Amino acid sequence: MSSIIPVKLPQNPYNIAIASNSLAQLGAHISPLNLGKKVLLVSSPEIFDIYGEMAINSLKQAGFEVINHFIPAGETYKNLDSIAQIYDTAVAQRLERSSTFIALGGGVIGDMTGFAAATWLRGVNFIQVPTTLLAMVDASIGGKTGVNHPQGKNLIGAFYQPRLVLIDPSVLKTLPVREFRAGMAEVIKYGIIWDGDLFTQLEAAEKLADFSDISETLLQIIITRSCQAKADVVSKDEKESNLRAILNYGHTIGHAIESLTGYSLINHGEAVAIGMVAAGKIATKLNLWPSEAEIRQNNLIQKTGLPTTIPSSINSSEIVDALKIDKKVKSGKVRFILPTQIGQVIITDEVPSELIFNVVEELKR
Amino acid sequence: MSSIIPVKLPQNPYNIAIASNSLAQLGAHISPLNLGKKVLLVSSPEIFDIYGEMAINSLKQAGFEVINHFIPAGETYKNLDSIAQIYDTAVAQRLERSSTFIALGGGVIGDMTGFAAATWLRGVNFIQVPTTLLAMVDASIGGKTGVNHPQGKNLIGAFYQPRLVLIDPSVLKTLPVREFRAGMAEVIKYGIIWDGDLFTQLEAAEKLADFSDISETLLQIIITRSCQAKADVVSKDEKESNLRAILNYGHTIGHAIESLTGYSLINHGEAVAIGMVAAGKIATKLNLWPSEAEIRQNNLIQKTGLPTTIPSSINSSEIVDALKIDKKVKSGKVRFILPTQIGQVIITDEVPSELIFNVVEELKR
Repeated sequence: MSSIIPVKLPQNPYNIAIASNSLAQLGAHISPLNLGKKVLLVSSPEIFDIYGEMAINSLKQAGFEVINHFIPAGETYKNLDSIAQIYDTAVAQRLERSSTFIALGGGVIGDMTGFAAATWLRGVNFIQVPTTLLAMVDASIGGKTGVNHPQGKNLIGAFYQPRLVLIDPSVLKTLPVREFRAGMAEVIKYGIIWDGDLFTQLEAAEKLADFSDISETLLQIIITRSCQAKADVVSKDEKESNLRAILNYGHTIGHAIESLTGYSLINHGEAVAIGMVAAGKIATKLNLWPSEAEIRQNNLIQKTGLPTTIPSSINSSEIVDALKIDKKVKSGKVRFILPTQIGQVIITDEVPSELIFNVVEELKR
Repeated sequence: MSSIIPVKLPQNPYNIAIASNSLAQLGAHISPLNLGKKVLLVSSPEIFDIYGEMAINSLKQAGFEVINHFIPAGETYKNLDSIAQIYDTAVAQRLERSSTFIALGGGVIGDMTGFAAATWLRGVNFIQVPTTLLAMVDASIGGKTGVNHPQGKNLIGAFYQPRLVLIDPSVLKTLPVREFRAGMAEVIKYGIIWDGDLFTQLEAAEKLADFSDISETLLQIIITRSCQAKADVVSKDEKESNLRAILNYGHTIGHAIESLTGYSLINHGEAVAIGMVAAGKIATKLNLWPSEAEIRQNNLIQKTGLPTTIPSSINSSEIVDALKIDKKVKSGKVRFILPTQIGQVIITDEVPSELIFNVVEELKR
């Protein structure tokens, strides 16, 4: 099975290729792009141990000269220092403007490699080879790159489009179950904000909580439809001036929860799941969608093994306060994405702080 | 006197406004752009001492909330650490996506403020208020932003367009003469590569070596025609895929000389002047242009008080070697811009290393 999704950006169009066992063909997928011979393969030691040799062999077979660079896994290393180390490798290995940076790994590797590619020699070629479900359906598409500031996530970065996103769903077999579920949170998000049919197909599946629960066909559908949803949205709004904001469904309160738990207790997908539960409840209380829809959403989140409650250790007022430091604040107002039905959302900055507080309180476990 | 030059980039069009005493109207020039209320004014302490109050008063009068950030003057501070300090101010002052970073200063301030603007929250508004001739006619136009890597100049950066470039020629009265001349090197460059009429007008002037030598009218012409030349070229080739390379006339050997003298003995404009003399001589030896044209170029450079010889302390082989680590190297070949007449150049990577070496040797003083 394989799918190609064209991302139709006026200045920087590119393809997302989704095909089982395609990592072994990485070099062959890149060759038609006519890039320079030097590639910098950036990955974590863990991912490189499993997939590095396969990737390198395929690149060498296609005639590329491969230089490796490792970044330790995890958000802790998603900072300017790690970027500076990529620059050091780039200068030591004399990478040129025609060279290509390839991110082989999860979202953190992709975001950092993309930012380094965006800013090395004012921009070199960049290719995403995501190895987590979250990176496949979200981080690798849309051109957001960057690192964290000590005071906040992703505050430093650039919009920079890859030349290709190559997704090999079969690599998910080595992904820890908790990370698989984290990716499923974004998949469910696409079902709510854009693709009601995807939502229905997920509802129809008996089990969804792990890679082994899901048929190869359903996995291809999940990834393809999610990528298509994201590509549709970013093609219509590359720089997040308006529509693209809907991708932040579940992320407003989600980011606050991640931040207040120090980005460790709760991972990004789990935080988004909780954020969707909160946003869904806010929408119900504002009579934006029927409570039956909210229940369907929450049931699907539960079937995937994702959390639906807020840890009691977090102070509800702190969540409300944290919303105000988020990037998505405009003129001091907090912007929410709220569903009006399965498959459709609106953007609003008219949610009263008391309502946010009350919903957060209700979700405390 | 005032001129407006529209820079017609498809995605990011903007104006260059050139008007005497316009710094006192900075706020009024920005207001029509409908940006957010918060502005971050980045400058060096020296420039701020002279022009800071005027800029801030004008911004406050137009209703802006102004936050100051200082970067010590000079290339030494053009690095990632200084950028990180801008980020720290941005997070501490809660600058938003609608906020605006204003660079008030020379090229170093502009390049760094622009890079910070390009990468803070993945891009905030950016305005250039250049205070050196070099920054007015070159660095502030075209969207090149960035910082140095310990191993090379401007290796880290991004293409990022300002929303406005505001040039007040009257501020040049406080510019040291050596810096004024450095800017004139780029002006002469535009005469050679693009605007033969500008060259002729410069030839017609009796004296050119200092601000006080030049009439207000000629200064307005010099800045306007130079900005127009640069805007013409970058509009046709925003990302430096081809035509824009002609702006590097004199810069190939110039960069090598700057680098080998530690960016201190010889400044950028002086290095470009020497680089133009070298490129002009290479062109003559390759029979690309008549030796009379080379003599006219060199006379104009001399009239401006710029150097035309290479310090004997530099080893000629080191210059030839240094060319190979430059950003403009493609597949290992050094790219030269060579004149075919006053007002026209070609791009070539077919200059033999021996010829470069011999020309460098001839120019040793």
